[in-house]
Amino acid sequence: MAAAAPPPPPSPAPSVISEDLLPTSHNLFSRIRLAKIADVPHIHKLIHQMAVFERLTHLFSATESSLSSTLFPPNPPQPFTSFTVFLLEVSRTPFVSIDQINPSFDPVYKTVMIDVPINDPEAELFKSGAGGGGNDIVVAGFVLFFPNYSTFLAKPGFYIEDIFVRECYRRKGFGKMLLSAVAAQAAKMGYGRVEWVVLDWNVNAIKFYEEMGAEVMKEWRVCRLTGEALQTFANVNI
Amino acid sequence: MAAAAPPPPPSPAPSVISEDLLPTSHNLFSRIRLAKIADVPHIHKLIHQMAVFERLTHLFSATESSLSSTLFPPNPPQPFTSFTVFLLEVSRTPFVSIDQINPSFDPVYKTVMIDVPINDPEAELFKSGAGGGGNDIVVAGFVLFFPNYSTFLAKPGFYIEDIFVRECYRRKGFGKMLLSAVAAQAAKMGYGRVEWVVLDWNVNAIKFYEEMGAEVMKEWRVCRLTGEALQTFANVNI
Repeated sequence: MAAAAPPPPPSPAPSVISEDLLPTSHNLFSRIRLAKIADVPHIHKLIHQMAVFERLTHLFSATESSLSSTLFPPNPPQPFTSFTVFLLEVSRTPFVSIDQINPSFDPVYKTVMIDVPINDPEAELFKSGAGGGGNDIVVAGFVLFFPNYSTFLAKPGFYIEDIFVRECYRRKGFGKMLLSAVAAQAAKMGYGRVEWVVLDWNVNAIKFYEEMGAEVMKEWRVCRLTGEALQTFANVNI
Repeated sequence: MAAAAPPPPPSPAPSVISEDLLPTSHNLFSRIRLAKIADVPHIHKLIHQMAVFERLTHLFSATESSLSSTLFPPNPPQPFTSFTVFLLEVSRTPFVSIDQINPSFDPVYKTVMIDVPINDPEAELFKSGAGGGGNDIVVAGFVLFFPNYSTFLAKPGFYIEDIFVRECYRRKGFGKMLLSAVAAQAAKMGYGRVEWVVLDWNVNAIKFYEEMGAEVMKEWRVCRLTGEALQTFANVNI
């Protein structure tokens, strides 16, 4: 989908806590790292969940095989010069940061305080194959982005195609963490912009984006040529 | 600018012709080819004209040098895998098609019938350095595009950042010809989509795009993080 799903808004503390649970704090450890081809099954499931969330499963036709060949081609281009996926992982135990070092990107680590341990009904399904922590690392979300270009600035930027956090991990700042990881990479590379799209009725997401300093371009409309219309128009010059 | 300038609508014949001019037809030969680094001075002037047209010169900071280094880096990626420019050239004499063959892209040729020869006040300024025709080849426009990606399709597509035709060559179908060249390349590569943006008040352009089969996505809004806000947000995870 050509759309960034709404990120979790800044997280309020849970307002209702069962009386027999003391409001003690728990640590949830999180990591953002570059995805690799072994992560494709998880990426595929995350994209499908996003399609369900957006009620657009009729447009979903990605397979693990098509994702592998397009996101991780045999002769991969230089890092960040093409389609790039950051994975969000969480764990109840600290990550061992010396593992999983990819020379192109230093993972981002963050510890989030939560009042009640999260019950992840899909923990087994999303168990991460990556090391660097305990046995309980699960994939919780992703962001897919790629370079775009501003002719006025004569500079590349990044376009965020998708950002998604699984339901039980929302409202904890992970959407913001993923967005910020892309912004940090853009800044590091001297890029001029980070752009994405949002649905106009998603006022919470728009408010969140504006508060973080993004400009919502109210006058621009996205045009899309696809399917048969694309094939037909492709023949205009023949 | 993050915007496709409106293309010329289908060209009506000039409605007023001076009485002492017989409405004879003239041929205007045109060609679309891949741009090369030697074309950067022309590309720079075209982008500047677009900024003037859009009244956005205050956002224009591209230089020939910054365009060269970002569009034509020393180790260029595979053709069409990054930022790509097609140039539109016109000539009063036929192009010699055996020249200027780039293995990555066969130029598109089209002959346009016009009633009155075009007076191009900038013909000298935009004289093309490329061969393959007479001495009167001038650069008349360009389109800049790059790959994007649909996670739902698990397929790349193309995003058109800019499309521009110089004023005296508008309303002759050249905008459509440039768009179609990008669509044809997408179709050839098995890509799923071609996308761009348009200003919501530009009803003529929207009508033109819809007639050619494009969908105008009315609910999506483009969000942009740039300048100091980008730098600030990049530090959120630190």
